[in-house]
Parts: sequence; structure tokens; C-alpha cells
Amino acid sequence: MNTTKRAKIVRFHEIGNADVLKIEDISISNPTKDEVTIKVEAIGINRAEVMFREGKYLETPVFPSRLGYEVSGVVEAIGPNVKLFKVGDKVSTIPAFSIGQYGVYGEIATVPEHAVAKYPENLTAEQGTSIWMSYLTAYGSIIKIGKTKQNDFVLITAASSSVGLSSIQVAKTEGAIVIATTRGNDKKQFLLDSGADYVIVTNDENLEERVNEITNGKGVNLIFDPIGGSYIETLAAAAAVGGTIIEYGALSPEPTPFPLFTALKKGLVIRGYTLFEITTNPETLANGKDYLFNKFKEGALKPIIDRTFSFNEIVDTHKYMESNVQKGKIVVTV
Amino acid sequence: MNTTKRAKIVRFHEIGNADVLKIEDISISNPTKDEVTIKVEAIGINRAEVMFREGKYLETPVFPSRLGYEVSGVVEAIGPNVKLFKVGDKVSTIPAFSIGQYGVYGEIATVPEHAVAKYPENLTAEQGTSIWMSYLTAYGSIIKIGKTKQNDFVLITAASSSVGLSSIQVAKTEGAIVIATTRGNDKKQFLLDSGADYVIVTNDENLEERVNEITNGKGVNLIFDPIGGSYIETLAAAAAVGGTIIEYGALSPEPTPFPLFTALKKGLVIRGYTLFEITTNPETLANGKDYLFNKFKEGALKPIIDRTFSFNEIVDTHKYMESNVQKGKIVVTV
Repeated sequence: MNTTKRAKIVRFHEIGNADVLKIEDISISNPTKDEVTIKVEAIGINRAEVMFREGKYLETPVFPSRLGYEVSGVVEAIGPNVKLFKVGDKVSTIPAFSIGQYGVYGEIATVPEHAVAKYPENLTAEQGTSIWMSYLTAYGSIIKIGKTKQNDFVLITAASSSVGLSSIQVAKTEGAIVIATTRGNDKKQFLLDSGADYVIVTNDENLEERVNEITNGKGVNLIFDPIGGSYIETLAAAAAVGGTIIEYGALSPEPTPFPLFTALKKGLVIRGYTLFEITTNPETLANGKDYLFNKFKEGALKPIIDRTFSFNEIVDTHKYMESNVQKGKIVVTV
Repeated sequence: MNTTKRAKIVRFHEIGNADVLKIEDISISNPTKDEVTIKVEAIGINRAEVMFREGKYLETPVFPSRLGYEVSGVVEAIGPNVKLFKVGDKVSTIPAFSIGQYGVYGEIATVPEHAVAKYPENLTAEQGTSIWMSYLTAYGSIIKIGKTKQNDFVLITAASSSVGLSSIQVAKTEGAIVIATTRGNDKKQFLLDSGADYVIVTNDENLEERVNEITNGKGVNLIFDPIGGSYIETLAAAAAVGGTIIEYGALSPEPTPFPLFTALKKGLVIRGYTLFEITTNPETLANGKDYLFNKFKEGALKPIIDRTFSFNEIVDTHKYMESNVQKGKIVVTV
């Protein structure tokens, strides 16, 4: 069989603002080898896709380029080598592929088998597309790298993002004391309601002083930050002796300094981290999937969805993410 | 007994160049509590002492200030709580104390018991004072943090310093492939003779290209650097995926950037490190001392002494260290 069919797929032909995203009717090949084709029910929107569209991501688009890491839906077809899935399975995608080549924004998405996972029955399709990118990122940081233990102090910046909220939940599940930061006062109560033990409003409060009060002068054991820029000096000042700062993004337009003297004094570890560190290690990925699947099933973790858009609003979806008003995952239903 | 006696001790009364160092005849108290008094035979000179004298060290001098971390000699007196040493023991010091308070440059040095160790019988006093600071620093970096294994690639910058040379030896003992860097061509042959598998002359060669050739494009697993500054971007470019950069000094006058995009791409760990991380952890310190004592005894490790000065040349000793022509440890005999 080599039949092809047509489907609506989001593509872009140049780097630019959200308006470069176009919904195009293109022909879709059948899955080959280890590929799985999914009839999409919901799309999870990620900051990575905005950065990719802007030409600021780790991967550079080749035009015309697809984009997108996360969908949930039903398996529609499988390649001849696929072993773990069959037509009709309810699945969602793990971002373990080239975003430009496999980009999943569309009515139909095809990805390699290793990037497909069943999601717990108790989750909706909207929730099912909101779990792997953010919670696996949190798993890698809080558990795999941070080795977070009962009563550790964990500081999470940009805490209202989907990764931030997932990290609060995962850190609380491990018994940590969580300090969340947010720029303005408007998201403070939301973050407390989402599980943070303390919230520091960085526009109004001195982070180092507040952390000293909260930790009795010890500082925080783990800092999880997607921003970078000069504020890393403040984060380093708030870290405990032997603490770790995990940088997982580059949202700040400023260059990021290495706080050398503070790092020498405290033996600080500062490291770069992306989800690919987890997805490219089969054992860690399997451990992370198991851990999360069970916690979702038990209800210990629960994805927080901010707002749902329809597929033809895809441009508005990106504009909304760039507004930074969201509190949790932005989802598109298809 | 509360008798006091007099001894020649090096002190300084203001921050400044080497000429601020004065040999002064001052009264010396008997050791109290857990203190050990050593009749000094040799003094090991360290970069830390130059930086302390310049007011650029982690500790700030309170005047008049002593200085110095390393001596070897014979135990002359012990405090009432000292258990492990007796008068007449041949010992040297481990830098696990305040440099200003206990500073050991002098005919007589008194330090806490936990900062005293016997050195192997096969070493001279000049060698005995040249081991703990540099080799424990290397032990912490190469073994404790770096977990260096057979055939790992280890890059050592400023490799002709005593810590650099100790790190080459420790890394070779663990079976690593060692790449040493040096600015000019004049120390290249010396570094090869000292055990480096490859030497990159950074004034003449492109470090990233040479590392790619040597490692077949994989990059180095561990980088051990006391310099910092903008060259850290080049070091990051030469690191392997999952590599570690250990910064243990701040010799560069430039600010040090955090190479964020490279760190994200490679999952790089960049961390600050000083010997205090080892000396403040009794278990790690004991492991390090045992490891090194045995390797010195077997002859697997051997301190490299560049030049010996006499005690009344102490000012020249610091000037010589600042000239950066030395290849190995600078020692003062008393």
C-alpha cells in the first residue's frame, strides 16, 4: 500500500512572528518503518515552538518547516516495524524527534515509535497532550539531576509556565519545600494554590533576603531556571553551599554571566539541561515514563491547563503564549 | 606551662605587591587544645597566597596578617587534646584552616591537628611540603567530582602550575588521556615529559580544532581550569556532550560568561571548586589522603619541584611565582 491522503498541517515558510504560521492542506504519506501515525485530538503548545518559529531554538528550521512536539490522539496507522502500538490505541507524543522534520501541529501527526506513549485512562485528550514535555523535563531536573529529597529547598523561577507548574508538583511529590518565583503579584495566589510553599514576587521583593528568611540562612539546594541573564547572580547568591542551578532555557535577551566567585565560595554546580538529556537515554526515559504514568494514575500529579483554543486559531495560540499571561498549559483541540 | 618563645614569621601589614611581605621576629605561644606546632623545614608556595596578599582571595587579610598554607617539618610541641601526633614526627600541613589566622610562612608553624598529616618516608622535606594542596585539589577534581575513568579525555589548562602537574599525574594514574594547555611553546616539551599525552599551545593553536582532532570529534569529558574569563566559551566548545568544566580559580581579570547555548546543547556541567570542598568533608579528606599517600609511596605520583629559595628570599619567591615562568612547585627551605 502506498496510498496517500491529504490533511491540514501547520507549516511556516520564513522566520517571524506568529503570523508566519499557515494551516496548509498537504498530502500525507503512510508511516514507514517504525513510524506511528496519529489522528490528532489535541495539541500541546510549548515555548520551544515559539523559539523555533523565531529562529532562536537549538534546531534551525528548513523551509517549508513543520513545528510542534506534543499531540494526543488515536493511532490511525503504523509502520511495518512498529511493535508496541496498534490502530485505535489512545496515545500522546514525547518530544524525542526533530521538531522541523516531524513537527506535529496538524490533524494528522506521524512520529517514530520511541516518541509515542500511552497516557493514563483517567486523563482527557487535552490532559494527555499536556504531560510528557513538561513533566519529563521536571522529572529530569528535580529527580534525576537534582536528586531532591524530603525537606530540600527547591527554587523554581518562571513558575507559572507548564514546566514550572509540573516542577512544583514533582518537587512536592518528593517532599521538598518549594519556593516559586513570579515577576508580578497577579500570579502569586495561583502559585500558592498550585502547591508552592512560598512565592517570591521578584518585581517587589529581594530574592536573596527572602530566601535567607525562608531557609534560615542556608539557601536553596536546587534552582530550576529557564531565564538566564544577569539574574543568575542573584540566584547564585540564594543558593546553598553545594547547591545546583539548572538552566533549561534562554528567555532573557541578556548574556548570562558565570558567577565565578560565588561558585568558588559555595562549590556551586551550574549546568545546562534540556529534555533531550532524558529522551536520548532509553533507561532514564523508561524510568521517567513509569514514574509519571503511575503518579498521574494515582492523581498525585495533575496537569494544569490554562486555556483551550481551536485548530484554526493556531496563530492566536502563539500570540497568547508570547503574552505571558497564561498559568499552565495552552492546548489546541482539533 | 605558658612559656613563649620568639621566631621569624612572615607577615604583611597592607595589601600590595610582593614587597609588602616582611620577615618579623615575633613571640610564639605554645599550642593549645588541638594545635600542633611544627619546626619548619620547607615551605610550599601557592598562588592562593599571592592572591591573598593582593586582596583578591576568598579570605580577606586582617592586619598584621600571616599567610601560607603549606610547610613540612618536625613536630615540636602539641596541644593537650592532640591524639594522632607526637613530638618528633615528620609531618606536613593540609590547607584546612584560615590562611590569615594560621598562615604558616615562618620558622615555626602552628595549625589544628586535622590539618596535619604524615608524609611518606621516601619523600624529602621539600617534596613533603609540595603534596597536599596540589594533589588533594587534583584528587577532588579528577577523581571525586570528575569520576575519571580509563580512556576519558581530560583537558588541563595552566598545566605547568603545581596543581596542573598534579592533575596530569592523577589523571594518568586513572588511565585517562590527558590534554594539557599552555600559552607559549616554551613549556610544551616539559609538559609532554611530565606525562601529558597531548599539549595544545593556545597562543598558536586553535583549541577547539585540536581537541576535535585528538578526540575524533567527541570532545573532552572533563576540563579543569583555574583561569576563567571569556576563554571558557572555547573550553565549552571543546567539551563532549555531558562534559564537565571545573573552575577552580579566577586568574583571568575578565568577567567569566556562562556559555548558555553550548551548555544547553551539550548538557554541560560547569561548577566552582576549591580544595575546601574536600578538606571540610572528613570522609572525602581521609579517602584523598589514603589514596595519595599510597600512590606517593609506590612512586606512581611524584611531586615536581621547579626551584628552591631560601627563607630570606621570601619576597623574591612571590615575584618568581608572579612571573609565571615556573614549571612545578616553588619551595622555600628554612
